Amino acid sequence: MSATIIDGKASAARLRAALAEEVAEFTAEHGTPPGLATILIGDDPASAVYVGGKQKACAEVGIKGFDHRPAGDASREEVLALIDELNADPAVSGILCQLPVPDHLDGVELTNRIDAGKDVDGLTIASAGRLALGMDGLRSCTPAGVMVLLEEQGVELQGAECVVLGRSNLFGKPMAQLLLGANATVTMCHSRTRDLGEVCRRADVLIAAVGVPHLVKGDWIKPGAVVIDVGMNRLESGLTGDVDFEAAKDVASAITPVPGGVGPMTIALLLRNTLQAARAQRRATFPS
Amino acid sequence: MSATIIDGKASAARLRAALAEEVAEFTAEHGTPPGLATILIGDDPASAVYVGGKQKACAEVGIKGFDHRPAGDASREEVLALIDELNADPAVSGILCQLPVPDHLDGVELTNRIDAGKDVDGLTIASAGRLALGMDGLRSCTPAGVMVLLEEQGVELQGAECVVLGRSNLFGKPMAQLLLGANATVTMCHSRTRDLGEVCRRADVLIAAVGVPHLVKGDWIKPGAVVIDVGMNRLESGLTGDVDFEAAKDVASAITPVPGGVGPMTIALLLRNTLQAARAQRRATFPS
Repeated sequence: MSATIIDGKASAARLRAALAEEVAEFTAEHGTPPGLATILIGDDPASAVYVGGKQKACAEVGIKGFDHRPAGDASREEVLALIDELNADPAVSGILCQLPVPDHLDGVELTNRIDAGKDVDGLTIASAGRLALGMDGLRSCTPAGVMVLLEEQGVELQGAECVVLGRSNLFGKPMAQLLLGANATVTMCHSRTRDLGEVCRRADVLIAAVGVPHLVKGDWIKPGAVVIDVGMNRLESGLTGDVDFEAAKDVASAITPVPGGVGPMTIALLLRNTLQAARAQRRATFPS
Repeated sequence: MSATIIDGKASAARLRAALAEEVAEFTAEHGTPPGLATILIGDDPASAVYVGGKQKACAEVGIKGFDHRPAGDASREEVLALIDELNADPAVSGILCQLPVPDHLDGVELTNRIDAGKDVDGLTIASAGRLALGMDGLRSCTPAGVMVLLEEQGVELQGAECVVLGRSNLFGKPMAQLLLGANATVTMCHSRTRDLGEVCRRADVLIAAVGVPHLVKGDWIKPGAVVIDVGMNRLESGLTGDVDFEAAKDVASAITPVPGGVGPMTIALLLRNTLQAARAQRRATFPS
């Protein structure tokens, strides 16, 4: 058997095309587009590339971008004042503060200054709490992107055994909550797990996000499982995932490649979150 | 083999005795005791018993009780104003709003009006978010009580397979987070899980909280497992748990009875949370 290769690039392109239409409708209805403010403090080249990509993606779907770039030595008070201003600005639907921030600043503090209704990265305490309690809210982009891929593949999550390998705040923990919300049986495993292979072999859906190249071997995969590889490891030979793709694709029924799998979904979900936030803000202002 | 019966009543008594000493030290140091405000809206007899028990427990360890009982037809605004007043009162270290509230009120809204620093039930969005993100904060009392029992039994959680049966906001979800924080491999299962027995049989530590009398059979338990029964089901024959205790005690290495297992821990942890909140408030006011 050879697995279906899940084409995240094509999924993301479809989602972005659909979002462009929805954004156009929103803009026609409200006379103003959704807006995404990005805050990049200092001039880290990698961060600048990420933020540039996000701003470009906004422009492509018709979301207005607000590209704030405080100097690397900006004070805590300056950045907090900027966030407060963006929180209060009705043209700004969503705000993200690109991490990491310079050492003299506290990324957790800055992130949590963002109004929960504008937290399009889903990283604030309030967003994590709303997700944990099963309340509606803005979800972390990468796990939300994985949910879209699973849905497009027609994966039945209800009652399925899902294993999430890795427990980061950014991905593993919110991923587990989303799967639980879809009525899956969810196991969270990690570096302290006694026998990772044994736990992974139970999975109908195996999601790896640990940042260890090729940690997940072919024989860790239950025949017919769906495998989602969130790893993005930069080796000399290029970008590679947490799963031994060549071995896994002969066992799994479907698998995401790296690159071109989960990666492209993240920015698409950031755009979707921005539109969702804009809609919720309009509803809150003008209850229907 | 016959399991050790985990005596939660004795554990709770030990914890309360230790807390009484710590509260006395706190009071001597600060000239004022920690305070717990309870809000009981209306005169539901069961709720009145619960709140009475909490107030009595406070008095026994030297925590000052503030026993607020708005009438059953109290308006939303009245209750919110009361909570705001308690949030602002430095004599009040912790606040709990007894649930359920009368139908014209929204228990989620009222709970979330409580300042996160005084949320001794650990039920607010902020407390759930802080737990999910691995930040310090006030934890839901019953799961925190289970952690104390496991620690007292010397259960090694790191790398252990823990299965939590039930995914309520009040217990199952925070329980899973606490076990994950202790480096366990954690599976959350529930009514939609395909084969509950199979999942439970993997558990080194099995925690049941679903409210179905005797759902967990003897052959769902791995020989030597630790079994924690959080069920409190009222049958004609008396109070009974979610586990078939008679069958389980011949398989498990340790097990909590119902009653007298997890139950007594909850109020003890409420008292501990109140002291923890009082200390944190003092630190915030007078940084050391």
